[in-house]
Amino acid sequence: MVIVMDETASEEQIANVIDKVVRLGFDIYRITGMLQTLLGVVGERIVDLRDIEILEGVKRVIRISTPYKLPNRSFKAEGTVIRVGGVTIGGPEVVVMAGPSMLEDRDQIMRIAEVVSQRGARVLRAGVFASPESLYSQGGPGEKGLRLLREASDRFGLLALSEVYDSRQVATAAEYVDLMVVGGGGAQNPDLLRQAGALAIPVIIKRGTAATIEETLIAADRVMMAGNLNVVICESGIRTFEPYLRKTLDISAIPIIKKLSHLPVVAAPSEATGRRDKVPALAQAAVAAGVDGILIDVHHDPQNALADGGQALRPEQFDSLMKRLSSIARAVEREIPAPVSNATG
Amino acid sequence: MVIVMDETASEEQIANVIDKVVRLGFDIYRITGMLQTLLGVVGERIVDLRDIEILEGVKRVIRISTPYKLPNRSFKAEGTVIRVGGVTIGGPEVVVMAGPSMLEDRDQIMRIAEVVSQRGARVLRAGVFASPESLYSQGGPGEKGLRLLREASDRFGLLALSEVYDSRQVATAAEYVDLMVVGGGGAQNPDLLRQAGALAIPVIIKRGTAATIEETLIAADRVMMAGNLNVVICESGIRTFEPYLRKTLDISAIPIIKKLSHLPVVAAPSEATGRRDKVPALAQAAVAAGVDGILIDVHHDPQNALADGGQALRPEQFDSLMKRLSSIARAVEREIPAPVSNATG
Amino acid sequence: MVIVMDETASEEQIANVIDKVVRLGFDIYRITGMLQTLLGVVGERIVDLRDIEILEGVKRVIRISTPYKLPNRSFKAEGTVIRVGGVTIGGPEVVVMAGPSMLEDRDQIMRIAEVVSQRGARVLRAGVFASPESLYSQGGPGEKGLRLLREASDRFGLLALSEVYDSRQVATAAEYVDLMVVGGGGAQNPDLLRQAGALAIPVIIKRGTAATIEETLIAADRVMMAGNLNVVICESGIRTFEPYLRKTLDISAIPIIKKLSHLPVVAAPSEATGRRDKVPALAQAAVAAGVDGILIDVHHDPQNALADGGQALRPEQFDSLMKRLSSIARAVEREIPAPVSNATG
Amino acid sequence: MVIVMDETASEEQIANVIDKVVRLGFDIYRITGMLQTLLGVVGERIVDLRDIEILEGVKRVIRISTPYKLPNRSFKAEGTVIRVGGVTIGGPEVVVMAGPSMLEDRDQIMRIAEVVSQRGARVLRAGVFASPESLYSQGGPGEKGLRLLREASDRFGLLALSEVYDSRQVATAAEYVDLMVVGGGGAQNPDLLRQAGALAIPVIIKRGTAATIEETLIAADRVMMAGNLNVVICESGIRTFEPYLRKTLDISAIPIIKKLSHLPVVAAPSEATGRRDKVPALAQAAVAAGVDGILIDVHHDPQNALADGGQALRPEQFDSLMKRLSSIARAVEREIPAPVSNATG
Repeated sequence: MVIVMDETASEEQIANVIDKVVRLGFDIYRITGMLQTLLGVVGERIVDLRDIEILEGVKRVIRISTPYKLPNRSFKAEGTVIRVGGVTIGGPEVVVMAGPSMLEDRDQIMRIAEVVSQRGARVLRAGVFASPESLYSQGGPGEKGLRLLREASDRFGLLALSEVYDSRQVATAAEYVDLMVVGGGGAQNPDLLRQAGALAIPVIIKRGTAATIEETLIAADRVMMAGNLNVVICESGIRTFEPYLRKTLDISAIPIIKKLSHLPVVAAPSEATGRRDKVPALAQAAVAAGVDGILIDVHHDPQNALADGGQALRPEQFDSLMKRLSSIARAVEREIPAPVSNATG
Repeated sequence: MVIVMDETASEEQIANVIDKVVRLGFDIYRITGMLQTLLGVVGERIVDLRDIEILEGVKRVIRISTPYKLPNRSFKAEGTVIRVGGVTIGGPEVVVMAGPSMLEDRDQIMRIAEVVSQRGARVLRAGVFASPESLYSQGGPGEKGLRLLREASDRFGLLALSEVYDSRQVATAAEYVDLMVVGGGGAQNPDLLRQAGALAIPVIIKRGTAATIEETLIAADRVMMAGNLNVVICESGIRTFEPYLRKTLDISAIPIIKKLSHLPVVAAPSEATGRRDKVPALAQAAVAAGVDGILIDVHHDPQNALADGGQALRPEQFDSLMKRLSSIARAVEREIPAPVSNATG
Repeated sequence: MVIVMDETASEEQIANVIDKVVRLGFDIYRITGMLQTLLGVVGERIVDLRDIEILEGVKRVIRISTPYKLPNRSFKAEGTVIRVGGVTIGGPEVVVMAGPSMLEDRDQIMRIAEVVSQRGARVLRAGVFASPESLYSQGGPGEKGLRLLREASDRFGLLALSEVYDSRQVATAAEYVDLMVVGGGGAQNPDLLRQAGALAIPVIIKRGTAATIEETLIAADRVMMAGNLNVVICESGIRTFEPYLRKTLDISAIPIIKKLSHLPVVAAPSEATGRRDKVPALAQAAVAAGVDGILIDVHHDPQNALADGGQALRPEQFDSLMKRLSSIARAVEREIPAPVSNATG
Repeated sequence: MVIVMDETASEEQIANVIDKVVRLGFDIYRITGMLQTLLGVVGERIVDLRDIEILEGVKRVIRISTPYKLPNRSFKAEGTVIRVGGVTIGGPEVVVMAGPSMLEDRDQIMRIAEVVSQRGARVLRAGVFASPESLYSQGGPGEKGLRLLREASDRFGLLALSEVYDSRQVATAAEYVDLMVVGGGGAQNPDLLRQAGALAIPVIIKRGTAATIEETLIAADRVMMAGNLNVVICESGIRTFEPYLRKTLDISAIPIIKKLSHLPVVAAPSEATGRRDKVPALAQAAVAAGVDGILIDVHHDPQNALADGGQALRPEQFDSLMKRLSSIARAVEREIPAPVSNATG
């Protein structure tokens, strides 16, 4: 940390600050410039900068070290590769995770699982709890839905993925899924992050609508410090002044996170846009910008979907998008493998 | 709702839309303009506009009715007045709620309770759970803290207020406090809002960092529909591009919410600014703009506070702020009564 | 336009509103719902909605017609194709426009022109006026720079492109360039837009840092109404709360503008990111999302550039990016033709 | 400036950076921490940080000195007091500047001048050029309007204030007004700022819709460096995701600018809100937060105003607001003097 003293700070104020900082266990270097004094502070402890900032004569305190440790690429140069049930996230493959925003019934999830598995998705994604993103969601099927998700995933050779928003949902979901998304305000909920850190399955941390990239990596750090190193970051849109879409998918977050962190990055264009007709362009952009995976809403009958029908691709739209994504992946030296003629279906 | 058809929509597409809407139970009025056709849709049901928006030939769907009912001032012209333990929120008084961001121990809460009660606060506010707003919060005292908060409140004749972030905290907190704040991402958590709606005590809904005013009133509506009509809205800052402070306190939200809704409105300048030196100006602005109450961080020794010391006023700063707030309140025909010489202290 | 009356509006207030609107020359349709009255207003005139909104008893006024006419795709279904000096913008080709942020001297622009022409750029882009985007810009070479830009463009068979920010610069620039960018706050400057509308060359309107897509199309409309139909829209980043980069390139604006308007769309990732290392990922994303062209900063010696060196690609970086962009273009059925072995160099 | 080296930076890279910085004329202090090396750089020159940031092995460059000099309170502790034609800006008085958004004709400006002078305004404010803030503005009366503004100001003992947006308007306006506002995108236009710096009258710099406080102070610095030290900063709203009002008046900017700078600060609630019914609450908040002046739209017949009628107060509304503002000013130890019974009216 660097402490910038006021131009008008007295020698006594400077001595006080040095004293306080040394007592906190830091080494200190003083730089006396023409205009002002800087104090370079070196040490391991993490403190609230504002505790220093309120001392008399201090103008500004600047953090030098990143406020997260385990996700930091400086400490682990090679990208993290997560292997789960035969699927590799963070390798050459761009992993496609697709399915309905909300699981409705057995028939629905089976039909959609069939569709997405035939077009090359590797993960079946379905919501089962009421989502804070959707004003109209009337609750979801809960544990019953998780059981159906598990069944459909197994039948079509897919991994099962669902999303939790509240700490009461984690343990239940963990019994059924292969990957879990921590969504809604979850990346800000210290309790929830601690629970996710105790899981044995990979966790996808969704960047909050108002969260900076740095804050999202701090959330990832909390999960990792609690013991779970298999963390993936998901960009799913931030809130800006532009009103046309629900959120603005921040494509620049993809290369930024890839540089700052060794963790895999995925994107969720359906959730960000809220509109089916904008999903293909943004899915394409995300793959061109280097994502390791992509979450896409697919529904066999969106006009009659219980939730978020407007953002779900129809099977034939998903099909043509997969072809484009596959070409774009090749153009950036990645791959979306052709679907295996999966058995049981 | 009004459905705006594309300029190029065919007569068949228009007929299809009319058919779908009528089957949903709505009355429909058709307006055929030179450029395009409008369909005015009248009825009680709440539907996801996007279900209509994805129909062929539809350009845009515009909601006419507000998406919240019970907080709407159109249905209840006079402002809601909440009476709790001798304090009235929404009346002539601007209710001051003050205390530490995080309760530390018995000594701390007793000292601060004494300070704030002597300067005219009516509510003792103290955090006991780890806050998602503070990156460094290492957890809080939890239920033990609630017990101390209750004790300090009783001793100094104050109401007790604390904040919850996760549905696991609601029942515990409800045993000890007189008012509960639903904070962090809580106003987006459907579970948490439902629980708050089942409480017998008033609930303060904090606007999320990325939440519009309308979304905040929808959250209030959910609490009210679940049975708790004693809801207060809290403006505590939104995220903007301006980096100087933690958040930007949206003062304009105060008169807007007062117009749209009959619910009382309070403001939280300490949380919004994160800096003690900016709290007075913003507290003054909030009172001048018409708030019904104000939440202020006070600490007897902020330099050694466990959390958020940088945003807590010292006792003497709180004292002079209270005098100013009291004068401003009078200037806008409100009042902050002089402190009663409270007994037990 | 639809006028939504207050639930409590009196019959007299409704009659007043109808009277005012009819006097303005509109046809009116009344819809009397259970809760409130709607007035559907049909007509050609453009009025300030707020003139209606302030009438007694009016709750809200909703614009139905888009507030821009000539850029509207509803009135011209096929995309506009602009042909200028052998280059086609809006056709199958993704037109690459490259060069230095600021023209420095004859040697610099000749070297860079050679580099970009050999790698397939079609347009040489160089700033000559002080840019409001760069705090440190100390002015530019002005007209002298325009002359050098013209010379370099001619020598290497490129079109010449430069940017204006103030109405005093338009006439001068128009004497030298083939395309002109209206940048900075220019898209908000009514004077400047009128001047751009009188030009015989294509004009690229840059979306302002705080401008919505709709406002940008209104700016385009003003240029077109002033007589210049050859308008291109440029997405160059919007300001959001995320501080890592200078601006957030809004990739979703690309498919949105393509849907709302028939005008070609280009993107400027160098300006948006301000950092060379993020330019490739965002340029790739823009092409994958469907842009008609792309503006990229290239400098033969960025470490010694006078301005914006940090965001300029080095020749070899531009080279490898062009190869990737070309592959991505093919994947989305567009093309970036291989460079013609251009003579004069 | 402080240069933070990568954790993995080689000794050679560090030496290179030191070499480059020393050649730029700076002194350098090296701090070798356990994790990384910091370089403290001390000197007078202003350089583009990105020129350093792109060097190999550099992680981040942090500016220590503020990027503006003359407006900096560190170099001039007491607040600037501007005296112009008998009015003092920056003293105990909160100076009220009122009038129509757009000057229409002689009768209009005379009536409004009379109204505002009788209620205690000191400055008559009227637009004469087309404003970029108003989509519907059809141009203004230009120089003819300036002449009428001058006449009305003189007749009612007021100062004359108008706003410019383009460098072509500055010289003309300067012949007629006592104070000039640089608005729209003007605070980003280097040309315009230089011209404003050559004027002999005070200049009010409006914060841009997407400008940070720091950028606004940089714009002020440019005017001051060009020779005009009589600069006032105006907060008139920033763009956020909240759609209810045109802009969000950033009340927190008032105490922040007062702390960072010695320049006077004024606020423009009419422009920020765009709605008459929200102006009083925000004007009150601005005064309570410590502004030195306030710009308010007033019109004797807003329903028939040519522009921005929706945001103009009616005379009787202005009257009661002035009474409230006066009481609030007293509560914060400022004053709005009672109107002098001005003669000529």
